[in-house]
Amino acid sequence: MSEPGTGLFTDRYELTMVAAALADGTADRACVFELFARRLPDGRRYGVVAGTGRLLEALTRFRFSPADLAALESVVDPATLDWLRDYRFTGDVDGYPEGELYFPGSPVLTVTGTFADAVVLETLALSIYNHDCAIASAAARMVTAAAGRPMIEMGSRRTHEEAAVAAARAAYLAGFATTSNLAAGQRYGIPTAGTAAHAFILLHDDEQAAFHSQVAALGTDTTLLVDTYDIRKGIANAVEAAGPGLGAVRIDSGDLGELARQARDQLDELGATNTRIVLSGDLDEYAIASLRAEPVDSYGVGTSLVTGSGAPTAGMVYKLVEVDGRPVSKRSSAKESRGGRKSALRRFKPTGTAVEEVVFGAVGGRGEDTPLGPHDRLLPVPMVRGGELMDGTGSLADARERLRTALVSVPWEGLKLSRGEPAIPTVFPNA
Amino acid sequence: MSEPGTGLFTDRYELTMVAAALADGTADRACVFELFARRLPDGRRYGVVAGTGRLLEALTRFRFSPADLAALESVVDPATLDWLRDYRFTGDVDGYPEGELYFPGSPVLTVTGTFADAVVLETLALSIYNHDCAIASAAARMVTAAAGRPMIEMGSRRTHEEAAVAAARAAYLAGFATTSNLAAGQRYGIPTAGTAAHAFILLHDDEQAAFHSQVAALGTDTTLLVDTYDIRKGIANAVEAAGPGLGAVRIDSGDLGELARQARDQLDELGATNTRIVLSGDLDEYAIASLRAEPVDSYGVGTSLVTGSGAPTAGMVYKLVEVDGRPVSKRSSAKESRGGRKSALRRFKPTGTAVEEVVFGAVGGRGEDTPLGPHDRLLPVPMVRGGELMDGTGSLADARERLRTALVSVPWEGLKLSRGEPAIPTVFPNA
Repeated sequence: MSEPGTGLFTDRYELTMVAAALADGTADRACVFELFARRLPDGRRYGVVAGTGRLLEALTRFRFSPADLAALESVVDPATLDWLRDYRFTGDVDGYPEGELYFPGSPVLTVTGTFADAVVLETLALSIYNHDCAIASAAARMVTAAAGRPMIEMGSRRTHEEAAVAAARAAYLAGFATTSNLAAGQRYGIPTAGTAAHAFILLHDDEQAAFHSQVAALGTDTTLLVDTYDIRKGIANAVEAAGPGLGAVRIDSGDLGELARQARDQLDELGATNTRIVLSGDLDEYAIASLRAEPVDSYGVGTSLVTGSGAPTAGMVYKLVEVDGRPVSKRSSAKESRGGRKSALRRFKPTGTAVEEVVFGAVGGRGEDTPLGPHDRLLPVPMVRGGELMDGTGSLADARERLRTALVSVPWEGLKLSRGEPAIPTVFPNA
Repeated sequence: MSEPGTGLFTDRYELTMVAAALADGTADRACVFELFARRLPDGRRYGVVAGTGRLLEALTRFRFSPADLAALESVVDPATLDWLRDYRFTGDVDGYPEGELYFPGSPVLTVTGTFADAVVLETLALSIYNHDCAIASAAARMVTAAAGRPMIEMGSRRTHEEAAVAAARAAYLAGFATTSNLAAGQRYGIPTAGTAAHAFILLHDDEQAAFHSQVAALGTDTTLLVDTYDIRKGIANAVEAAGPGLGAVRIDSGDLGELARQARDQLDELGATNTRIVLSGDLDEYAIASLRAEPVDSYGVGTSLVTGSGAPTAGMVYKLVEVDGRPVSKRSSAKESRGGRKSALRRFKPTGTAVEEVVFGAVGGRGEDTPLGPHDRLLPVPMVRGGELMDGTGSLADARERLRTALVSVPWEGLKLSRGEPAIPTVFPNA
């Protein structure tokens, strides 16, 4: 119980709403909140559900410590402080399993509980999903663009230090092979990787000395950074230092395609035919795709990964859709929501290709008993019941495999990098 | 000492470089690393230094616990593990004080120490600066656009839960009045604010019931959200519930300028002449500027703030510039750096308007003894000496005031929102 609480990752208005609802007797009304994206980021074909494992873990730590409560004395009244002191989420959570695809309107997460129990989770749930889904969705496109070549996630330095750990997790979920982030290695068991920085070369009297030192410390299978001075000389020095069994060279600047071809030729001439070529330096999914014909063995991706490649937040919202069994929704503008609890299924062709996302009203139930066609798959799964985590939710390895499988089912246009419509349409037969 | 360590917010290659440098005897070479931005985000006129206080605090926790070291057994050799076990930063840090402006090439932070001591801080320093500077730089433009109207930071839900706390801090530094984020309130003493969500209205049997409940719980000075159903009816219900002394109404959707005018007229007709109008809903600096002529009293800003309004990372790098008194720099490509320790001064007109950023070589010293012209101001200040924090660094209130003053000195073109060149040029007389 020494783990820090997550209760204060909350917007003030959630607690003042609880205060008012406790006072007027509506705090205990049975509510259903739904987390979903109204649309995908501009031109994207699919979204990737990510953050589920992190949210479920954070939910177990959603508590208010004595220090937290002291800080809240100026925010809410004593009755609300008492309520917060005893807070434990006792409701239910259903949702798309982590690694599943989502589309506009997909009910990615559904939280069932009293108003007060469920409304306080709004900010935490949205923070985790909006960040992690944005990163995983961008990462999946990069993995597709890399067409099987392994990718190293190395964007930690371009984002908040804790967001970096979550980004490494989302990238691994999406198929990245490794991360440079040591905290992600420790926390989630993600394989870590790394090469060397230009600083290491510059520290030494010359490039040869730096390469000899690195090989002595890390073995010949290491990756030597060859673009500090002259790349051609750098490659010659690298093979001289490590022998033709050198693991890899990394090039971090310049015209990467041209440099990769030259490096391959030179390495082959030197007998280093198995030495791999690692490219890095402002790569995004488009740059990666443009390198497909080049002799590249792996990519290091940083900035574009951790910033969601132009879409740093997923645009998820958390909306109250049902109160005491009655559908509710905002009605004043274009930002409307469909009221009522919903569930969803994905419809496939007999060949296994996805055809459409069916989001349907599930009033009075959770959709588990929905009659499914032979090629339909129900999407939400139960994750929390009465505040207790269900077994088998939240595994990162499962999520990684689930996404790999799901992407195989996407119609081929849906895997294009170019801007377009969602890969499959969302239909709302009765929602 | 129960605070969690920050040692693992580090890329793997930093530790393997330390391992190689410990083995070859270069780990103790006297090094200078410089943190700077090669350029500002596309079209931006200035950057805002932010994150200094967070970095200095994180530096005091840069340690490797037994659990951390266990996780690193597969990464580095036993000698390096021993070195990490005893790690304490014992070097010096100089830098631009938090809240100062920066321009391309400004030496925002300079870390002096042995190679091993200083290289391991690379990722942590960059993560904090790249995130916090990006947010503060965007926030400052929004504050300028708001022209004195108070701004509420409410973007927590659009970014990682810990990044949200740092974003609230950066926004406050940049002049935002309040944040919705309760953790930021507790951790940094930032004033918190909030209104109510549409969920609170929908929870109740009707809008009147919701408004009466909120006023009963929070008083007539509260802010009522009036756009759940019909805004005109919402405003009438709001004044009916709270009386003409109602604090504020919030409008979160629709044509905000038109709605603000209508709302002001209606409120005035109802005698609620002092009731404020709060606008929110996908506002960025351009939208805020476009509302300058409208009867708006304050703005709530979310997504665009926490994503840096198109520039979610500041593009800072951390480069080795000096080894044992010798300038060093990468030389293979356009991504060159200027070698050697540098300092900087800002030159002003007698009127107090900034003219240029002068980044000069400070080999053999730190620039403190640089002869200054009558309108020059030396920018870096000492922050850490021999691993010990200097007094008076890292205050958020000071940073807020510093930025306010600095923006007054920017030439008027530099405060324009439109894309253009940096507000003042950076010159490198000898660097």
